[in-house]
Amino acid sequence: MSEHRAIPEPTPQIQAVPATVPFVGPEALARRTGRRELLRLGANESAFGTSPKALARMREELVRSSWYGDPENHDLREALARRHRCAPENVTVGAGIDDFLGLVVRTFIAPGEIALATSGSYPTFVFHVKAYGCRLETVPYDRSGRVDLDALANAARRLRPRVLYLANPDNPSGTFAAKAQVAALRDALPDRTLLLLDEAYADFVPRDELLDDEIDPRVVRLRTFSKAYGLAGARIAYALSTSEIAATFDKIRHHYGVNRNAQIGALAALEDREFIAGVVRAVAEGREDYYRLGRRLGLRTIPSATNFVCFEIGTRAQAEALVEELLRLGVFIRKPGAPPIDGFVRVTVGTPEQRAAFEPLFAEALERVAAKAPA
Amino acid sequence: MSEHRAIPEPTPQIQAVPATVPFVGPEALARRTGRRELLRLGANESAFGTSPKALARMREELVRSSWYGDPENHDLREALARRHRCAPENVTVGAGIDDFLGLVVRTFIAPGEIALATSGSYPTFVFHVKAYGCRLETVPYDRSGRVDLDALANAARRLRPRVLYLANPDNPSGTFAAKAQVAALRDALPDRTLLLLDEAYADFVPRDELLDDEIDPRVVRLRTFSKAYGLAGARIAYALSTSEIAATFDKIRHHYGVNRNAQIGALAALEDREFIAGVVRAVAEGREDYYRLGRRLGLRTIPSATNFVCFEIGTRAQAEALVEELLRLGVFIRKPGAPPIDGFVRVTVGTPEQRAAFEPLFAEALERVAAKAPA
Repeated sequence: MSEHRAIPEPTPQIQAVPATVPFVGPEALARRTGRRELLRLGANESAFGTSPKALARMREELVRSSWYGDPENHDLREALARRHRCAPENVTVGAGIDDFLGLVVRTFIAPGEIALATSGSYPTFVFHVKAYGCRLETVPYDRSGRVDLDALANAARRLRPRVLYLANPDNPSGTFAAKAQVAALRDALPDRTLLLLDEAYADFVPRDELLDDEIDPRVVRLRTFSKAYGLAGARIAYALSTSEIAATFDKIRHHYGVNRNAQIGALAALEDREFIAGVVRAVAEGREDYYRLGRRLGLRTIPSATNFVCFEIGTRAQAEALVEELLRLGVFIRKPGAPPIDGFVRVTVGTPEQRAAFEPLFAEALERVAAKAPA
Repeated sequence: MSEHRAIPEPTPQIQAVPATVPFVGPEALARRTGRRELLRLGANESAFGTSPKALARMREELVRSSWYGDPENHDLREALARRHRCAPENVTVGAGIDDFLGLVVRTFIAPGEIALATSGSYPTFVFHVKAYGCRLETVPYDRSGRVDLDALANAARRLRPRVLYLANPDNPSGTFAAKAQVAALRDALPDRTLLLLDEAYADFVPRDELLDDEIDPRVVRLRTFSKAYGLAGARIAYALSTSEIAATFDKIRHHYGVNRNAQIGALAALEDREFIAGVVRAVAEGREDYYRLGRRLGLRTIPSATNFVCFEIGTRAQAEALVEELLRLGVFIRKPGAPPIDGFVRVTVGTPEQRAAFEPLFAEALERVAAKAPA
């Protein structure tokens, strides 16, 4: 190669994107600590696994791994349309909610335009906002650690963002805003602001407490098979929107982006309602268990509508130290990154066995952190 | 919802993207023709399946579908680095080559800037160029239906594109440019032009005929598990590049975009060299079979370095009619879209049984097309 040649360079916009990683995975943490595997209570993966019927279908279809999946996701979209009482044209299937967060930012927010979100809510939305050169504006959680819908509405009226991101139930706080509040926020939005409603954890909430399944041109709703359905590794999620927005996604989405076996597993999992109902019950029991654990250890917990619970540890530094201590003990958890809940840690609901394993390690890690605290 | 409210709209750039679909899938074609399943010889899926060792590992790991995959793709990148004699920092894993085509366009070509490709080569590159608002310039195949590397080099010097896309072996022609020619093209590129080398079919070519595994700042190479490795449905591929380019991908890529079981299957498939060698041999036999079939039917074929062969039918309209006739007979094939090979059809190498089923249907469809041709 000639010494004089100028090599290809990314566009100025891409060069300006900061180098960030949304989440360090438990595999990397295990490698860092020299462990083969960690007790995985950090990524809100379902501890209750996947529908056995879905696994059986996936096992059967593995031999067809050499076939591409259906780029139209036809069968799954038909089933989802029945479930949500809309048309298949209102359903787009993609490779996880993260995929849709990028797609929505790219579709609705030009570089330099504004996205609005709660500071410290799900960071992958922020990752995409920055990666597409858009401007992020945030509103803090309220003092109790809940998403502040009034403050979001006020900020939206002031800033006129292209997209307002709302995770409901919220991650990492676990809190849930009732449907009347969400509808009020939607109706308070200024002209041309899209409400991006991330409902990753909505399957843990009774259906009648969720916003009605009505397609609204101001709202894109995201749902996933990664949480209650126990298919996080399969990478499959869907968006509910007007058919116009879905057609726009079709102009730019990765048509062959969804794993074929994920399509098959998701369809079978969707139909196994009994299994999902059992998961939702088991998760509710696990949350109660964590609330009791918090009381026993003298730690405040935030009532959660999800498959995880936040425990108050103290200062941000103490909560960070606790995450590190637990990692040393072989336990993977994560913590909220922004005030007023950055002194909390977030623990995924494990199976009864995992919870039994977690409790003494949690107590031990708390003692170690307390021992290090300034007198 | 108030009648007066202006609803959210896509950005002007996204509104300007044309509505196109890179490929209609065989499932949609089957639905259209009322068939349950077609003889799939149209998408260059491997007829020879997936490594049994890979399938066994995937079967074992299905029960962990509720876990996310490793966002760093650590184990697979280590194995790929050993295979390609580079560092893991030179390897990025993604959800298929299509995923990388979008990522490379987004990284290197700002809206309005130029991408250069062969007219009629793999259309998903073009799909992403348009979807990101970039300008496409093309060079035709040469008169024999081969990629015209000299013409590409000349056009590159004239147009100074940000990216020159080269599929080698090429799809849909099946032709292969020797490594000295590719190296000459690379060395003839103007300053700042990236050579995007799509090597989806490179596993069918002897390794010593491919460009050496040397990391070059002017080249991004794409490889996939979709073809020889028989994992198209799994959606997993990788890019070989400088660590700087890989780090740039890390700033914007979908970190949790790869299916966990795909990671596991790809790693096991990569290690089952015996199986892949058998696939490559079986495909070579199948190509010879197709050449013989062409001679028997009086159809010219293009010598192929891939798992498909192009047969010359006549005019573009006749080739299109043949695709339709075969579809009526339950056979899915595709055809090149641009001259001088738009009068050809492209047939994936099937198993001996699939080829035996295909031959009489091909002959029948040819007769039907001939019967309809103007006298």
